[in-house]
Amino acid sequence: MKVLYPTNIELDIDSLVGFLADFVPYDTTVKIPDEHLDAVVLITWMTKHLDYAAQNMKSLRWIQALASGPNDILDANFDRTRVTITTGSGTHDVMVAEHTLAMVLNSCRRLYEMRDFQNRLEWPGHLGGAYPAGKFKTLRGSQVLIWGFGGIAKALAPHLTLLGAHVRGIARSRGVRGGIEVFDEHELPRLLSETDCLIMILPGSSSTVDALNAERIQSLPNHAWVINVGRGISVDEDALAEALETGKLGGAALDVFKTEPLPQSSRLWMTPNLLLSPHAAGGRPEGCTELIAYNLRMFLAGRPMKNVI
Amino acid sequence: MKVLYPTNIELDIDSLVGFLADFVPYDTTVKIPDEHLDAVVLITWMTKHLDYAAQNMKSLRWIQALASGPNDILDANFDRTRVTITTGSGTHDVMVAEHTLAMVLNSCRRLYEMRDFQNRLEWPGHLGGAYPAGKFKTLRGSQVLIWGFGGIAKALAPHLTLLGAHVRGIARSRGVRGGIEVFDEHELPRLLSETDCLIMILPGSSSTVDALNAERIQSLPNHAWVINVGRGISVDEDALAEALETGKLGGAALDVFKTEPLPQSSRLWMTPNLLLSPHAAGGRPEGCTELIAYNLRMFLAGRPMKNVI
Repeated sequence: MKVLYPTNIELDIDSLVGFLADFVPYDTTVKIPDEHLDAVVLITWMTKHLDYAAQNMKSLRWIQALASGPNDILDANFDRTRVTITTGSGTHDVMVAEHTLAMVLNSCRRLYEMRDFQNRLEWPGHLGGAYPAGKFKTLRGSQVLIWGFGGIAKALAPHLTLLGAHVRGIARSRGVRGGIEVFDEHELPRLLSETDCLIMILPGSSSTVDALNAERIQSLPNHAWVINVGRGISVDEDALAEALETGKLGGAALDVFKTEPLPQSSRLWMTPNLLLSPHAAGGRPEGCTELIAYNLRMFLAGRPMKNVI
Repeated sequence: MKVLYPTNIELDIDSLVGFLADFVPYDTTVKIPDEHLDAVVLITWMTKHLDYAAQNMKSLRWIQALASGPNDILDANFDRTRVTITTGSGTHDVMVAEHTLAMVLNSCRRLYEMRDFQNRLEWPGHLGGAYPAGKFKTLRGSQVLIWGFGGIAKALAPHLTLLGAHVRGIARSRGVRGGIEVFDEHELPRLLSETDCLIMILPGSSSTVDALNAERIQSLPNHAWVINVGRGISVDEDALAEALETGKLGGAALDVFKTEPLPQSSRLWMTPNLLLSPHAAGGRPEGCTELIAYNLRMFLAGRPMKNVI
């Protein structure tokens, strides 16, 4: 049984011993070569030419994506009756949580504004010390709402809590997860109105398009910040820019955009108090080899694998 | 007994009931007026004209500073045989720890560089995803050394540990504090050589001048970052700038400087990978009223107060 693995990410292939499988490296930037179209398993990481793979890999039974939300694979026309798809969900949680925390602290501690002042050779003394009330200036005592409460939120919430924030979540189903109270979307208007910092970690799907729209932005206090590390489609970017330009929102730190890289023509480059991060929260999965080893054992035994979609 | 309190900081004076004391507000920017030179207790927060107070407040017995390291009061010539000085030590720990964490994450996640790119309308795609080895790119698995291990370090360390960093400390005496192993300065050369991120929280005193000098910078790996939230005098700024300009050091994030505001002529404004924060880590003490109430009780009873220096 042939397993194709990508060479654009560090995997400890030598540790994948004890399997009746041949591990064959492949170049993710070109079409799978003829001699490897017979592979049964395809491990993907930013793999190109997925449509070609879908049409020509007749023996393929399983794709192990290392991305957390592999929209590219879902968009390719793999025969889902024959090919099981598993994601890299969980391997990105810790790294994305760290980047998100960095963005949140950069926002409330105004480090981006200090940087702008430094670049102008100006001392931003007014950014230190006490701030006027009604600003998002510290996590201590602040109300943080995490919209999209999965693995990343669970990894992130303890850091926010330890810094003294009051953290709540929004998800499709309510409950208590990792000690955090999670509400459903019906309660959004009330929860948004009580929020100092909204952290969006929604997946990309037709149901999350423009989830944060003009009306919901309006529900947020004027001093509130929006952090988005989920998918760009979940924010109405024009409504967000409008709110920032007119002072209806404190600021926004975005790691994801509707179009990436952000087009030169976008108004977001220059929107006041809008911080751009170039889809940099993830991209450093951890524990991939362990996930592959586990799922390969399950696959060979015909047992349920992790992260099936 | 007259207690003078400053009006440039929010204090819940109404809650200070039950004492045989008159609480009188004073303006910290002008000399203490004649009619209040008879005060027995002086509470200070960025109070000016301290030399005048030292010479003219003949009844003064106790100064409660709200700053953590009140060098200005030590520099004024109060008669220390008569006047006890207590500091605001402890009231800044949580806020300074938050700002320090923000600076550390800004450094390793390169948010300042993303900001520079955004201001040039350039997409910094190369700052995302995996980095080459031997860079300070995440706290996860990184070696952090905190030099000056007091209350701020104790408040900061749990955040770093939760993010997956290996934290060690340096202080005058060794031991284990808050679960962190603290070494003495004799071990600096070895510890520095193993450090990805050095966080300096040294107090200002003659013994800490240029504590981080050219030789010690040389002990750090080329990729290491230096964060200073203690006092500006503890860093040889020219040696630091030199190391950054020649690539002998990864970066530096400084909240304190030898001269503040940083003079226009300083080379630090433009030093590569040097992040300026305008002495903004502190300045937002918490629990001041509680500290004053406790120390006032002890003072009136002739018992030992907190934070005596």
